[in-house]
Amino acid sequence: MVTRTELANAIRFLSMDAVEKAKSGHPGAPMGMADIAEVLWRDHLKHNPSNPRWPNRDRFVLSNGHGSMLLYSLLHLSGYDLTIEDLKAFRQWHSRTPGHPEYGYAPGVETTTGPLGQGITNAVGMALAEKILAAEFNRDGYTVVDHRTWVFLGDGCLMEGISHEACSLAGTWGLNKLVAFYDDNGISIDGDVEGWFTDDTPARFEAYGWQVIRNVNGHDPVEIATAIETAKKSTDRPTLICCKTVIGHGAPNKQGGHDVHGAPLGALEIEAARGHLKWLHEPFVISDEIYAAWDCRPRGLNEESAWTTLFGAYAQAYPELAAEFTRRMQGELPPRWAEHVAAKIAQVNEKAETIATRKASQNAIAAFAEILPELVGGSADLTPSNLTNWPTAKPVSRETGGNYIHYGVREFGMAAIMNGLALHGGLKPFGATFLMFSEYARNALRMAALMKINPVFVFTHDSIGLGEDGPTHQPIEQIATLRMIPNMAVWRPCDTVESLVAWAEALSAKDHPSCLIFSRQNLPFVTRDAAQLEGIRRGGYVLRDVTTPQAVLIATGSEVELALKAQEALAAEGVAVRVVSMPATTVFDRQDKAYQAEVLPLGVPRLAIEAGVTDFWRKYVGLEGDVVGIDHFGESAPAPVLFREFGFTVENVVARTRALLA
Amino acid sequence: MVTRTELANAIRFLSMDAVEKAKSGHPGAPMGMADIAEVLWRDHLKHNPSNPRWPNRDRFVLSNGHGSMLLYSLLHLSGYDLTIEDLKAFRQWHSRTPGHPEYGYAPGVETTTGPLGQGITNAVGMALAEKILAAEFNRDGYTVVDHRTWVFLGDGCLMEGISHEACSLAGTWGLNKLVAFYDDNGISIDGDVEGWFTDDTPARFEAYGWQVIRNVNGHDPVEIATAIETAKKSTDRPTLICCKTVIGHGAPNKQGGHDVHGAPLGALEIEAARGHLKWLHEPFVISDEIYAAWDCRPRGLNEESAWTTLFGAYAQAYPELAAEFTRRMQGELPPRWAEHVAAKIAQVNEKAETIATRKASQNAIAAFAEILPELVGGSADLTPSNLTNWPTAKPVSRETGGNYIHYGVREFGMAAIMNGLALHGGLKPFGATFLMFSEYARNALRMAALMKINPVFVFTHDSIGLGEDGPTHQPIEQIATLRMIPNMAVWRPCDTVESLVAWAEALSAKDHPSCLIFSRQNLPFVTRDAAQLEGIRRGGYVLRDVTTPQAVLIATGSEVELALKAQEALAAEGVAVRVVSMPATTVFDRQDKAYQAEVLPLGVPRLAIEAGVTDFWRKYVGLEGDVVGIDHFGESAPAPVLFREFGFTVENVVARTRALLA
Repeated sequence: MVTRTELANAIRFLSMDAVEKAKSGHPGAPMGMADIAEVLWRDHLKHNPSNPRWPNRDRFVLSNGHGSMLLYSLLHLSGYDLTIEDLKAFRQWHSRTPGHPEYGYAPGVETTTGPLGQGITNAVGMALAEKILAAEFNRDGYTVVDHRTWVFLGDGCLMEGISHEACSLAGTWGLNKLVAFYDDNGISIDGDVEGWFTDDTPARFEAYGWQVIRNVNGHDPVEIATAIETAKKSTDRPTLICCKTVIGHGAPNKQGGHDVHGAPLGALEIEAARGHLKWLHEPFVISDEIYAAWDCRPRGLNEESAWTTLFGAYAQAYPELAAEFTRRMQGELPPRWAEHVAAKIAQVNEKAETIATRKASQNAIAAFAEILPELVGGSADLTPSNLTNWPTAKPVSRETGGNYIHYGVREFGMAAIMNGLALHGGLKPFGATFLMFSEYARNALRMAALMKINPVFVFTHDSIGLGEDGPTHQPIEQIATLRMIPNMAVWRPCDTVESLVAWAEALSAKDHPSCLIFSRQNLPFVTRDAAQLEGIRRGGYVLRDVTTPQAVLIATGSEVELALKAQEALAAEGVAVRVVSMPATTVFDRQDKAYQAEVLPLGVPRLAIEAGVTDFWRKYVGLEGDVVGIDHFGESAPAPVLFREFGFTVENVVARTRALLA
Repeated sequence: MVTRTELANAIRFLSMDAVEKAKSGHPGAPMGMADIAEVLWRDHLKHNPSNPRWPNRDRFVLSNGHGSMLLYSLLHLSGYDLTIEDLKAFRQWHSRTPGHPEYGYAPGVETTTGPLGQGITNAVGMALAEKILAAEFNRDGYTVVDHRTWVFLGDGCLMEGISHEACSLAGTWGLNKLVAFYDDNGISIDGDVEGWFTDDTPARFEAYGWQVIRNVNGHDPVEIATAIETAKKSTDRPTLICCKTVIGHGAPNKQGGHDVHGAPLGALEIEAARGHLKWLHEPFVISDEIYAAWDCRPRGLNEESAWTTLFGAYAQAYPELAAEFTRRMQGELPPRWAEHVAAKIAQVNEKAETIATRKASQNAIAAFAEILPELVGGSADLTPSNLTNWPTAKPVSRETGGNYIHYGVREFGMAAIMNGLALHGGLKPFGATFLMFSEYARNALRMAALMKINPVFVFTHDSIGLGEDGPTHQPIEQIATLRMIPNMAVWRPCDTVESLVAWAEALSAKDHPSCLIFSRQNLPFVTRDAAQLEGIRRGGYVLRDVTTPQAVLIATGSEVELALKAQEALAAEGVAVRVVSMPATTVFDRQDKAYQAEVLPLGVPRLAIEAGVTDFWRKYVGLEGDVVGIDHFGESAPAPVLFREFGFTVENVVARTRALLA
C-alpha cells in the first residue's frame, strides 16, 4: 500500500527531475506544497482528467505560477493528457510544459500564472462566475452549476497590492466556494520574509470577511484534510487555509532556505533527497502502484457522469435554460447576433446623434445587452463617468448574482477578475475606468492578450479633452502604448456609429481582448455611405475623399472632426486632401496590403492627427510625413483651451499640411 | 473670538466658491475634512509658510488629491504665497492651482496627487526618508532631522492595492512619525461604499502593525486633537486615525451623498450653505479676523528659527555632517562627482569585461556608492536577480536606517515610495524589478516624470534573453512603451561602459527620472575611441563606421553584438554598413539636428535591431527602412533558441540589409 507521503514524493521527484533536466525552474514550491496538493487533488478536487472542459469541474489555480512543475506533476499523475515526455520537455521550445503554466498549452491549466497576485485574482473571478451562473441557471433540484475554486498562493502573491483588491472583494461578495491555501514558508527571493513581510495575514483576511484556518501543518495530510472539510462547510465566506510548510521539503541539505526556491537542486542534492525520502526510482520513473493510486480518472468519470445525468433531467425540465447554458459555456454568440448588430448599426446611423462617445458606448451596451444575457459589466467606481450601466443591469451583491459589478476603486483587480470571469466561461465581461488608469491594470490587459481571451476593457476620458482634472488624468502616451500590446485590439471611435461597431467587434472576438477608448466630450456625428459603414470594421477607411488627393489626413476619435474641418479649409484654398478615419490601427494592420494601399496610397504625403504621442504614427506617415500630436504632459484647464494651445486647430492642421506639400 | 468651526468654514466656502467658479472640481472632501484640517494645520503641523522648503518641516500629503481645494485653501489661509487670485484661477490655464495638487506649482504642495493610493505611498517614502536621515545625521543633543508626515486619505486610496503594499511596509518599518487620517464618509463615486468596500479597515491596519484610533468624530475638534496627541506619542508604529465625516458637510441639502463629491454645488445650494453655516461673506471674501486666526507664519518662523539655532550649533560641533546635510538637502552632487565618473569610466573601459549588463550595473552602483552616501537602493524581492546590492549596502530595518531597502514583492509600492524618498530630499533612490513588472509600477514612473524628480528605476531581464521563464516574463513592448512616457530617460546599454555611463547620467539628472534596462545574459565588451566614449552620453552614436556607408544598422543592448557581427559578415560580402549604438533614444532625440544627421545621415537606408516591438523604430527608419524585432509574445525556451527562432541571427540581419539595398 503506498502512503500519502510517497504519493506526494512523486510530485517532489518529478519536479526535481524536470527542473534539473531543464537546468532552470523552481523546485521549492512544488516540494513544499506537495502534501497539500496530494490531499486536495486525490480526495477533494472535483475534476475529470479525461475531460478538462467539463463545465462543472472545480477550478484549480496555481497563483504562485513559478511552481509550475507542481501543476504539471499533478496533471500527469492524476491522468490528464500530459505525458512523461511532456514533463521531460519542461521549459523547452514548443513544449506543452512552459516555464510558467500557460492557458492553452497543457490541458487542465485554467489560467496563465507567474505575474504574482493575478492568479488569486483570476480565481476570485472564477468563483464569482460560478456564483453568477448558479443564480441564473440553477433551479430547485437542479444545481447544475455547483463547483469550487481552489487556489495555491505564496508570500509573493500576498505582498502584491492586487491581492488586497481581489480578496477584499471576495469577502464582500461572500464567495464561500473559494478556498485558498497560503504556502507560509517564510522565504522569498531576498531571504527570510520577516525583514519585509510582517503582516498578520490571518487577521488581515478576517478583516476582509474571510474564514481563516490558522496554523495548519502543510505536511500533515490529516490536518490538511480537516482544514479542507472546514472550508467546504462555509456558507457565506471564502476560506484561507494558512499552511506552515518547509520550502523544498525533502531536499535534506537545502530545504527551508532561499537556495531551493528558484534553481535546480543539483545532482548531488537530488541523490541525497532520494536517500532521505527512500525514493528508489530513476529520474522520471513512477511505479505502476503509484500511478494507480494517483489515477483520478475513474472518480472523475463518475462525477461528470452524475452531472451529465442531472443536466439531462434539467434539459428536459428547462430546455431553454439548458440550451442557453450550453451555448454560453461553449462561448458561442446567439444565432441572431449578426442580424441584431446590423439592425442596431442602421438605427444608430439613422439617428445621427452628436453625443460623447462614452454616451454612445452606453447606448451600444444597452443595445447588445438585449440579446447577450452573458454580458457582465462593471466599473472601478466610475459608473456615472464611464457610463457603463444600462437599464436592465442588476448589481452583483453578497446576496445574489447579477450582471453589473461595482468593483470599487480597484482597476488592476477589476481587470484580472474580468480575466477570471472570461476563463470560467459562460460570461462576457467588460469593465471600465479612466484611460489613464489603464496603467494600474496594464499587466492584466497583457495577460488577457497572452491568453487569447476576450474581455472588453472600456476606457473613457481619453485625452486632454477631459480638461480641468489636469495631467494626472490626461492620457498622452496611453493610446499608443495599449496598441503595442501584442494581440490587443484597440479602438478609438469618432462618433456613435464607430462606437457601436467597435463594441460589436469586441463582443464578437474569439481570440483576443479589446480596449475601447471613449471621449468625455461630445463628438459630432459623421455621415457615411454603405462602403464607409463597412469600412469601420477594417479598422481604417476613407471617410471623405477627393478625386486626386494631394495629401492624406489620418485621424482617430475626437480628432476626426478636426481633420474634416481642415479638409474643408484646405479645399477652400484649393488643396485637395483625403480624410482617413482610423479607429483601430491594430485591426487596420491585419488587413491585406492591397486594402491598406487603397486607403493610404503610396507616394501621397500623410499627416496624422491624434491627441497623443507622435512617435506611434511614424509607422503610417514615415519620416517625410507629419503628426499633429502631443509629446509632453497635459495641463489643467478647460478642454477647448488645451486643444487650442496644444495646436489642435484647423489653422495648425492646414498650415502643417501645406508645409508637407511645400 | 472666531470659533474653530468658523475657521473650518473658511475652507468650506473657499472650496465651494472656487469649484463653482471653475465649473468643475470636488467640494465634498474639502468640506468633509475641513474640521480635521483646521486642528492639524493650526495646532500641530510644524511648518513655516514663509519658507516652504525648510528641511525639517512636517510633510503633509493630500492622498485624496481630487480634494485639492482643501489644500489650496489651507495654503492660502495659513500664509503661503498663494493669493486669493490664485484660488480664483482654480483649474485655469497656467494657474498655480491646477485641478489636482501638482508638485512645483503652489508652494507647500509636497507631491502631485490624484491617482489614488499613490499619495499615501509617497508619504510612506517621506516618513522613511526622515527615519533614514535621522539615523544618519542626528547626534546626541542635535536632533536636526525630526519631523512628521501627515496624510489625508479616503475610501478610494484604501481600496487601491498600492495602499496594501505601502501600509504593510510602513508597519514593518515601524514608521511612528507617519500619521494618516482616514476620511470615513461612506461614499464613493458609485454611491454608498457598503456595496463594494466592507473591509474592517481598523483591523486591517492593526494586522499591518499600525496604531489605529477608531471612531473619531471628524467634525469634533476636541476628539480630533485628542487623536493627534495619541498619534504623536507612538514610538514604534504608524498611526491611522479613522474619522467619521459627512461628505460635503455644510451643504444642507446635498451633504452625505454622492452628488456633493465631484461637481459644483450650484449657486442655490451654496446660498443655502451660507444660511446654514451663518457665513455672511461674499464669494472669496475672508474676514481679517479669520485671516489673523489662520495665520501660521508667526508660529512657523519661531519653529524654523529654533531649528536654525540648533542647526547652527550642530554645524559647529559636526561641521562635516552639517555641510553634507546641506548639500544633500539641496540636491547637489558632491564636488568630486565629474572627476569620479570620468575615472570610473576609464577604469571600466580599461577592464574590458564581458559580463551581463545587470552585473555591469551592480559594478556601477558600487562605483558610485563610494562617493554618494545619499544613494538608497533596493529591489522588489529580486536582489539576487537584479544585482542591486553592493558591498557596503546596509538594509533598512525596523530598528535602524540604512541604504538598502528590501521592498518585498511590491513593485508599484516600491516605485511610489521611491518618489516619496526623492521628494523628501536628502536621498537618491533607486529600485529594481524585472522589466516586465515595470508594468505593475507604471503609473508611479509616470508620476515621477510628471513631477520632474530623479529616481532611478532599474529593470533587468530585458528581453526574450531571459529564456525559459517564458512570455509572462519576457518583455516585448515594455522598452518602447517606457520610452513614450514624456520626460522619462530610458537607457538600454550594450556593455559595461554604456552601463556605467547610463548610471552616471541617471544619477546626474536634475529634472527627470530614468529607467535603466539591463540584460540577464552576458554581453561582450565593445572597444571605443575617445569620441565614441563621449558619444554614449548623447544617447546614440556611431560605434563602427565605414568610409561610405550603404546602410546604417541601429541597435540597442544585446542586439548591438548582432549588429557588429552582421557588419562584419556584410563587409565580407562587400557591403559597407555603419553601426550605430543607440542606448537612449530619449536622449538622442534631444540632441541638435546636426548631430542627429551626422549619426543617421539622410538618404542612407536604415535597419533597426531590437528584441522588442518594431513599430517604435519607424521614427528612425521610416517606411523605407526595416526593423528586426518581435511583434508577438515570447515563448518558454532557452534564450539562444529564442533568438534564433525569432530571427535574431547574423544571417537574417544580413539578408534584411541586402533586401534594403536591392
